[in-house]
Amino acid sequence: MGALDEGHYCVVLENGVKLGDDGFEQEPETVAIEDAVKVLLQGLGEDVNREGLRKTPLRVAKALRYKQNVRDIVQGALFPEVGVENGTGHAGGAGGLVLVRDIDLFSYCESCLLPFQVKCHVGYIPSGQRVVGLSKLSRVADIFAKRLQDPQQLADDICFGLHHGINPTGVAVVLQCSHIHFPNLQSAFLESNHKRLSKITVGSGLGTFENHDSPNWLDFFGLLRCRDISLDNIRSRNSCKDSWCPSRSQKVGPSGNPDMETAVAAIVRSLGQDLCRKELVGTPNRFVKWLMNFKDAKLEMKLNGFATMPLKTVGLTNYKEHIRSEVNLSLWSLCEHHLLPFYGLVHIGYISGEEINPVGKSLLQSIVHFHGFKLQVQERLTRQIAETVSPLLGGDIMVVVEANHTCMISRGIEKFGSNTATIAVLGRFSNDPLARSKFLQMIPSYSL
Amino acid sequence: MGALDEGHYCVVLENGVKLGDDGFEQEPETVAIEDAVKVLLQGLGEDVNREGLRKTPLRVAKALRYKQNVRDIVQGALFPEVGVENGTGHAGGAGGLVLVRDIDLFSYCESCLLPFQVKCHVGYIPSGQRVVGLSKLSRVADIFAKRLQDPQQLADDICFGLHHGINPTGVAVVLQCSHIHFPNLQSAFLESNHKRLSKITVGSGLGTFENHDSPNWLDFFGLLRCRDISLDNIRSRNSCKDSWCPSRSQKVGPSGNPDMETAVAAIVRSLGQDLCRKELVGTPNRFVKWLMNFKDAKLEMKLNGFATMPLKTVGLTNYKEHIRSEVNLSLWSLCEHHLLPFYGLVHIGYISGEEINPVGKSLLQSIVHFHGFKLQVQERLTRQIAETVSPLLGGDIMVVVEANHTCMISRGIEKFGSNTATIAVLGRFSNDPLARSKFLQMIPSYSL
Repeated sequence: MGALDEGHYCVVLENGVKLGDDGFEQEPETVAIEDAVKVLLQGLGEDVNREGLRKTPLRVAKALRYKQNVRDIVQGALFPEVGVENGTGHAGGAGGLVLVRDIDLFSYCESCLLPFQVKCHVGYIPSGQRVVGLSKLSRVADIFAKRLQDPQQLADDICFGLHHGINPTGVAVVLQCSHIHFPNLQSAFLESNHKRLSKITVGSGLGTFENHDSPNWLDFFGLLRCRDISLDNIRSRNSCKDSWCPSRSQKVGPSGNPDMETAVAAIVRSLGQDLCRKELVGTPNRFVKWLMNFKDAKLEMKLNGFATMPLKTVGLTNYKEHIRSEVNLSLWSLCEHHLLPFYGLVHIGYISGEEINPVGKSLLQSIVHFHGFKLQVQERLTRQIAETVSPLLGGDIMVVVEANHTCMISRGIEKFGSNTATIAVLGRFSNDPLARSKFLQMIPSYSL
Repeated sequence: MGALDEGHYCVVLENGVKLGDDGFEQEPETVAIEDAVKVLLQGLGEDVNREGLRKTPLRVAKALRYKQNVRDIVQGALFPEVGVENGTGHAGGAGGLVLVRDIDLFSYCESCLLPFQVKCHVGYIPSGQRVVGLSKLSRVADIFAKRLQDPQQLADDICFGLHHGINPTGVAVVLQCSHIHFPNLQSAFLESNHKRLSKITVGSGLGTFENHDSPNWLDFFGLLRCRDISLDNIRSRNSCKDSWCPSRSQKVGPSGNPDMETAVAAIVRSLGQDLCRKELVGTPNRFVKWLMNFKDAKLEMKLNGFATMPLKTVGLTNYKEHIRSEVNLSLWSLCEHHLLPFYGLVHIGYISGEEINPVGKSLLQSIVHFHGFKLQVQERLTRQIAETVSPLLGGDIMVVVEANHTCMISRGIEKFGSNTATIAVLGRFSNDPLARSKFLQMIPSYSL
């Protein structure tokens, strides 16, 4: 596979090498990241030469090393525009805010290395008889997002980059950020309503937006009406780092995998980051602890213990076969092609005259976690769940998995609204389309 | 500006040249498209050396010549997956549908060359012990979308491309398409509720989806529940070409600009298209007719005639100054950087003791059209509207323009949900943030 297959990027790295050139794969930083990812895969008990995993290290390196130069982007797209002056009171002058709203971005959390999603609103007040091409506001935001960040730093970086690139009267950025909130292996089995996302809103301003009391902010928020944002619910600069990343609230301690921590540290260094920076000190440890949730071996053992439990409550007086369902079981998993989370809901249909008992319902959720908490692809996961529940539920099984894939958002194609549904069927569902259709109608509409 | 500034693509053209390479700009097809775009700009009465327009021909060429090879994309991403067989009745086998939903795409209408937006749902049933990387379904759809298309042909192309790339048991595609429905210059002034979008839903299937009665379609639509799609509302294969593109319902006849039509024909030929294909025969004529709506000269004259009309109804007994507003005026315009439409709503605030009269309201809408129907940037448009209405409405003016830019969707950054708001202020609004805030609260939430 050529370098182009993985993404349609062709970007200039800071050292001038183009991603997409064959040279990229030989760069020492690329090789260092690939080597480190191999250590992590081995630490998870995986075979790095298995076909699904063979290119995973290169995919990770490509995604992480995306960089571009702000000045090159902005300088080529400053257009002269008469009537745009520094003075107030002129149409298009100060007060003449230009705001691009609802730009979808993603970034990488510097505390745990997981991607987080961003709804970005970026605006500026032109000056010096120049406006900048609208798409460039989004491009500059994107450059800073594709680094290890925390939300406030990201907002500050975008703001600073645009301020120095465009030299406007003022520039302002508001980011609505959502960080995936994975349960750890233990709590996944205990909490049925685990919160999926950690959210905060941050802002940053320079020039006429530097002061939070500036009337320009009133205009900015006025144009963001109906988005549930105001000066009041913007996180203050000092409080946000501590509470934002869910991994920060987990208990501190060694991961027990020093080799994997060393490998992650090598990745972070290959990105040009200083591991002594206080925000990064515990990052390799936190990432490895999170990753080890997906180690395969220990789960299979637990699963064997459940396989003989009675799942159903026999003895309804009116014994009659129906299509029955357990819907909205939580799913957390890790895409083996990209080492990125996918998460969503699992729905299980079966044909039986008996109701499932409460222990049975909890067992089905456990089975989903058993198959979810490892390196997976959604197609295999769906099949494995069907095959595991089949002997417990009578052999007529339909499993539907609906999931959001972080790799569909943060790698290459960046299709933010997309999600994936898969079906596996066994027994009578295989040959009865109306039974399948009836079960599909039992599934609530998908939203996370 | 280097080739990289315009887009983060690096894609291989069908002749093997990479977009993003310096060589691209010297390709004869690129030069032919650039020359043709210059003829169009001159036909619109524009100076092709004006800074805002200087790179427009190259931008158009880059966007139109995007191409990539399906086989290269898919072949590198077929992963072995045990349990995926041709036979029915196996989990992950036939019935084991994999469906990626809600992929945002855009394509170009072969009848009029304008971009249309697509919500794409693409699925397949794996076979031969192989699954394809999920992102590849989206990538293949994207390749065929970035050509001159009609919706049914696009669905058929994606389906055929995946069928031959993956060799699955079956493959199916459903596309929900929206085509911008520009009013022509005359009707813009007459119709206040012009329909903004022309919509259709199309589908295509091969293998086990080839027959419309196939039970596999039941599964497919079952997984698209709550999206208002069913077999019944999918347009039949023969009816769709005639009624889909709004330009097809306009009257046939010469555009009066043979040089511009020849230039557009050259663009279509440079894309490797056969102009004798019946769908393309009238395309240059339709595009030129549409484009000439934006010729600048004739509009300025009309505007002068209105400038002295009385706008307001004097004589309220309780004469008191208020912030008053005219909101949701329709906007249609053409981005001069990309030759692509932008469209949305204009809101005008003013401070006065008098109500505006019905003729005045209609005049404001006309002023918006006067400034909209030409090559524009949103910032300038906002300022021009403010300056034009200022003498008519007493000098205290705030104009807010909210617009969707086709170039933000179909060029480079592809930020589908984004939209842009601009403000221009004159008179007392310049120094009174609370007046601005009050007017902003009068504007309904933006949705098109």
